[in-house]
Amino acid sequence: MSLDMTTDVVELTRQLVDIESVSRNEQAIADAVEAVLVGVPHLQVTRVGHSIVARTELGRPDRVVIAGHLDTVPLNANLPARLEDGVLHGLGSVDMKGGVAVALRIATTLAEPVRDVTYVFYEAEEIDAEANGLRHLSLSHPELLGADFAILMEPSNAGVEAGCQGTMRVEVRTTGERSHSARAWMGVNAIHAAAPILAKLQDYTPRMPVIDGLEYHEGLNAVFVSGGVAGNVLPDECVVTVNYRFAPDRAEAEAEAFLRDFFDGYDVTVTDTSPGALPGLSVPAAKAFIDAVGGVAEPKFGWTDVARFSALGVPAVNFGPGDPLLAHKQEEHVPVEQIVRCEQQLRAWLEAR
Amino acid sequence: MSLDMTTDVVELTRQLVDIESVSRNEQAIADAVEAVLVGVPHLQVTRVGHSIVARTELGRPDRVVIAGHLDTVPLNANLPARLEDGVLHGLGSVDMKGGVAVALRIATTLAEPVRDVTYVFYEAEEIDAEANGLRHLSLSHPELLGADFAILMEPSNAGVEAGCQGTMRVEVRTTGERSHSARAWMGVNAIHAAAPILAKLQDYTPRMPVIDGLEYHEGLNAVFVSGGVAGNVLPDECVVTVNYRFAPDRAEAEAEAFLRDFFDGYDVTVTDTSPGALPGLSVPAAKAFIDAVGGVAEPKFGWTDVARFSALGVPAVNFGPGDPLLAHKQEEHVPVEQIVRCEQQLRAWLEAR
Repeated sequence: MSLDMTTDVVELTRQLVDIESVSRNEQAIADAVEAVLVGVPHLQVTRVGHSIVARTELGRPDRVVIAGHLDTVPLNANLPARLEDGVLHGLGSVDMKGGVAVALRIATTLAEPVRDVTYVFYEAEEIDAEANGLRHLSLSHPELLGADFAILMEPSNAGVEAGCQGTMRVEVRTTGERSHSARAWMGVNAIHAAAPILAKLQDYTPRMPVIDGLEYHEGLNAVFVSGGVAGNVLPDECVVTVNYRFAPDRAEAEAEAFLRDFFDGYDVTVTDTSPGALPGLSVPAAKAFIDAVGGVAEPKFGWTDVARFSALGVPAVNFGPGDPLLAHKQEEHVPVEQIVRCEQQLRAWLEAR
Repeated sequence: MSLDMTTDVVELTRQLVDIESVSRNEQAIADAVEAVLVGVPHLQVTRVGHSIVARTELGRPDRVVIAGHLDTVPLNANLPARLEDGVLHGLGSVDMKGGVAVALRIATTLAEPVRDVTYVFYEAEEIDAEANGLRHLSLSHPELLGADFAILMEPSNAGVEAGCQGTMRVEVRTTGERSHSARAWMGVNAIHAAAPILAKLQDYTPRMPVIDGLEYHEGLNAVFVSGGVAGNVLPDECVVTVNYRFAPDRAEAEAEAFLRDFFDGYDVTVTDTSPGALPGLSVPAAKAFIDAVGGVAEPKFGWTDVARFSALGVPAVNFGPGDPLLAHKQEEHVPVEQIVRCEQQLRAWLEAR
């Protein structure tokens, strides 16, 4: 499969959607993207697995990253793409082949951007972090990702969503003592002992800090609860799995300390954690970008790979066509106007002298 | 396999233990028991499936039932029987072949009891109520079970445990609205909504009514809790499964009304219910029996088939060798002294003029 780069960004998005690229099946789309990029004189191309990095080397004072993942969640009877009344439907149309098309168009057509640009097209974002192509690049070739600012083309309704909140999951455990339920006084019910845990969660008031002018919104939620041995036995264990979404002014260690204090007296085990990312809008390249796209930025609540750039010391924002609430849905679809607008705005920002 | 009835009750127990009779495999033991009973001139024997009823017809003013089940829970490397230091070990030694041996000895050797006796040896007590032999008899041949008083030879440490508590299971359900946990304010967390349910259970004070001089002890316990969709989704349902053990002065309808009131405002579904059984110790035959075995009765907390007799209008008690806490355990074992004592006391009661 190869890409016809003589078309516009909407038609290019449609072509990309029609190259099925469910995670772990990115070879075809990566080959097609690489083939397009290696033929471009102003780009230096590196491939690592099914991730491709293409860089301008113009000696500009600033360097920015424009990144997007090539994979999608599993097929759900939503291919091939379908364009209808100005809306493109199909798997990956939102998450995030519209953004990939924008980046690919600019990479191939803009020979002299005012900032050096590193384009990153990577594999395996939709599955375990272990497989994530951006993570692999950040470990194996961190020098390729160095920049003053990064734009991750995750769907954001073609607006800027800055930074992202961190996420941590903990298991909060109570223990008791089994007994036959006909002689309950001989045991200790671990499910009953979880009552104060749920009550604290119910009473929790989220922190909503303002960072770089953006108001974040934390969340603390039980996402699972389980306990029980048999229908006639007092349970000796109950586990409440809690997901904490924390604003990016809090480091992972601070998030964990907060949880241990919040659930003081209970057995707390961290099972999963990812740091947030500060919006970093005070960086000049970021300021110029916000101005170029209309002057407004919103906070990003969900976790995205912007946090990986943040961990590399690169402030990053989400900016891409499509409604993030439609990502991973069977009926995924994007107004083509947003794809076109994203390309125009990015191009204008990279051309403005 | 046949039983040697010339031995004593301990040796007879050992023989019965050694006839493996896990539920649904009662043919051999039922054949052996039937063969013994049909040869006894003073008994009229009826077999239904693998359950056997043997009755004296002496025209006594009172009739009592002496009943025991022939089946056991599954094998657990605990056969054959082993007699050591006055303790008989093996599957069914407690639950309840010691009691069966006592009943069988008295049935075959006591030609002229002062009360007419109906001996019942039945199948499938340890599995679904649908299969229960006593239940089948009560439906197909209720006239065979009619009596003034019944003794169920379930293990009770050779003491009298009167009546039994009822049991009811309900699912108490909360509902919410799913949302991504990064935007929790868009959803409603059903697990958090279960906090007051657990708090009420934690604060519950059990009723302990005294009935016929026996103090029962109710219990209300969460035996299962479950909820959760995914690690990043607010759950839209949480189910707490609650087991209510209620004293026998409360009918099932009253128990249900209590639960619906207790969990007022929540969705409550009854999934399982069995009535309790009043001790009925005011019946003359029962009084005489209590006197014969030492004058003391204790309340039975767990549910047993005495409730089936109660439902037939026959007051019933549990009385058998073995510690009920050892029932269904791999290491099941019974002091032979208890088996011998049960036989002596039952015999004395049925001979006392």
